[in-house]
Amino acid sequence: MVDKQPTDGVEPAAAAGMQGAVCPVPLQHEDQVVLGHGSGGKLTQKLIARYFYPPFENPYLLQGDDSAVMDWPQGGRLAFSTDSHIVSPLFFPGGDIGRLAVAGTVNDLLMVGAQPLWLTAGFLLEEGLPLSVVERVAASMRAAADESGIQIVAGDTKVIQRGKADGLFVNTSGVGIVPEGREINGRRAQVGDAVLLSGTLGDHGIAVLAARGELDFEAQVVSDVAPLTKLVEAMHAVGADLHVLRDPTRGGLATTLNEIAHQSNFGIEIDEITLPVNPAVEAACEMLGFDPLYVANEGKLVAIAPEAQAEALLNAMRSTELGKAACRIGRVTSKPAGRVLMRTGIGARRVVDVLSGELLPRIC
Amino acid sequence: MVDKQPTDGVEPAAAAGMQGAVCPVPLQHEDQVVLGHGSGGKLTQKLIARYFYPPFENPYLLQGDDSAVMDWPQGGRLAFSTDSHIVSPLFFPGGDIGRLAVAGTVNDLLMVGAQPLWLTAGFLLEEGLPLSVVERVAASMRAAADESGIQIVAGDTKVIQRGKADGLFVNTSGVGIVPEGREINGRRAQVGDAVLLSGTLGDHGIAVLAARGELDFEAQVVSDVAPLTKLVEAMHAVGADLHVLRDPTRGGLATTLNEIAHQSNFGIEIDEITLPVNPAVEAACEMLGFDPLYVANEGKLVAIAPEAQAEALLNAMRSTELGKAACRIGRVTSKPAGRVLMRTGIGARRVVDVLSGELLPRIC
Repeated sequence: MVDKQPTDGVEPAAAAGMQGAVCPVPLQHEDQVVLGHGSGGKLTQKLIARYFYPPFENPYLLQGDDSAVMDWPQGGRLAFSTDSHIVSPLFFPGGDIGRLAVAGTVNDLLMVGAQPLWLTAGFLLEEGLPLSVVERVAASMRAAADESGIQIVAGDTKVIQRGKADGLFVNTSGVGIVPEGREINGRRAQVGDAVLLSGTLGDHGIAVLAARGELDFEAQVVSDVAPLTKLVEAMHAVGADLHVLRDPTRGGLATTLNEIAHQSNFGIEIDEITLPVNPAVEAACEMLGFDPLYVANEGKLVAIAPEAQAEALLNAMRSTELGKAACRIGRVTSKPAGRVLMRTGIGARRVVDVLSGELLPRIC
Repeated sequence: MVDKQPTDGVEPAAAAGMQGAVCPVPLQHEDQVVLGHGSGGKLTQKLIARYFYPPFENPYLLQGDDSAVMDWPQGGRLAFSTDSHIVSPLFFPGGDIGRLAVAGTVNDLLMVGAQPLWLTAGFLLEEGLPLSVVERVAASMRAAADESGIQIVAGDTKVIQRGKADGLFVNTSGVGIVPEGREINGRRAQVGDAVLLSGTLGDHGIAVLAARGELDFEAQVVSDVAPLTKLVEAMHAVGADLHVLRDPTRGGLATTLNEIAHQSNFGIEIDEITLPVNPAVEAACEMLGFDPLYVANEGKLVAIAPEAQAEALLNAMRSTELGKAACRIGRVTSKPAGRVLMRTGIGARRVVDVLSGELLPRIC
């Protein structure tokens, strides 16, 4: 169930792993980091709004898009984004932490209309990690970087004692250039705009879960993790006025659409029957009580654009490998402002909320 | 002893924390990540040269400076750097992981002559971490960002299950602009250049060690962790032709000078009696068998510039808070190419090598 609160099970014990911090009184649930703070959903938003926005406050950060966009002093606009990756296991059908780390940041740059240029990579290695793992991950990162049209120009490596980390964590940060005339962000959604989706929902989340061996059945699900460079380039080539691009990662499509509805202060209405889900993902979700709307994707995007340009965009998307299953899933509405509604198969309307709690920890 | 090999104690056991990696045969020492791979010294260099340079290969990465420098398409040069921070404990006399994370990346930008502009922050939080710690660290980051003249424009937060991380790890990545005419990198050291140091050695490493309570005596040592923006600005204001700037962090001054000697293919000679060390740091190093030349600094820099400009630079450095104890410590020589020599107090010469093994894990 997507609204399950895994925080209920957290003991109000002394904090684990905290050194140097003084904790004179027993901690309450709400005083501690819980897994839900990393969900990408409601708790993540609260954490950021309460603990990071106020101290770091500046106009770029508060834009709330996938990348910050700033004016470069000598001309042009620079997009800058960061993403840390803690996926477990490190290797899964369709990808690994290296491919995920490159694609994650590249896609965040693409989602503000930027052409990806340069990437940094920060590695946290646990003592005892086989160097063959480092080798495989680095090779995978290079392959994904080539696929993305980006260069890995700087890096950093730190080692943590055995038992104080979990194999390998990878941060990537990326810089891109936003071509003149492009304004792609969550505030540009307009009433009447079409909402497009590039493909099936939930493949990444279920593939990682299956790779953990935690499913009682065998699910032949392959992660969709991929840099979306070619898909997005094909969309720009149409010359359409793309209003919003967003990749529905942690928190899934439901959370992503809510973010856009919130930023634009319009409503978004989607049609349940249009949502593409692979049969194996659907079966896994049914057994687990998950809703594919909330399961993470790592190679998909949502596009919002004027209705008149929707068909041309869909054709462009479908002409690419990663956009073959692209479809129209809904529209931007004037009301309810800031909310997402879904027309179900039987014609009813229900509110689609942001992910609450944690659905699948360490999926990205 | 700086050349102690802590790797000797590593068990060739099955890798801890590795999921998804297949390890069919027992691993040998050389097949695994050891703490020394994070030292900043010889093993770190080997790791990077063997596992990261070949797959990621591109001219920017191979420059080997503290930041990569690229041409921005619409004019000017962009510096880009990343640094992950795993210091333990999170709070120590003189600073905390937040100040360290901002200063670390800001200083890497400054060391290639860049003006720092924008920073990203990636947080890895362990489940159970008190939110009061997040609050203190974020406030410290903002204060350090203000001191640095940089804005934190984007961030990312991930949560790891209790026991699979250690409180809090922070990655920062930074972008700066390199003003026209500045060429500051390790390849520009010239024979006859003066080697300057901005202050005392080893304060950060010893302060963190003391904060762990691992010393048998009480050391009143405060970390020097600081963004060096004002110090570097004062040096640029002199109008000198700075050839090299480098901050002697992990691996200490000895490792930093070796990097420069290697990059320039000249020798560097330093005078032992000129090296400034706080008495408390000296006492701690004597008791522990450490050499301050190898202990990490987080608010110091080495500058290499034409001899004729050395006095003006020293005066400028001494006019700032962080450069009060600036001094001349040596010179660039034609031989031995790629090596560092030290004239000891009694007039002998000895080779100063790169840090071998790990001196102090998780110092930054």
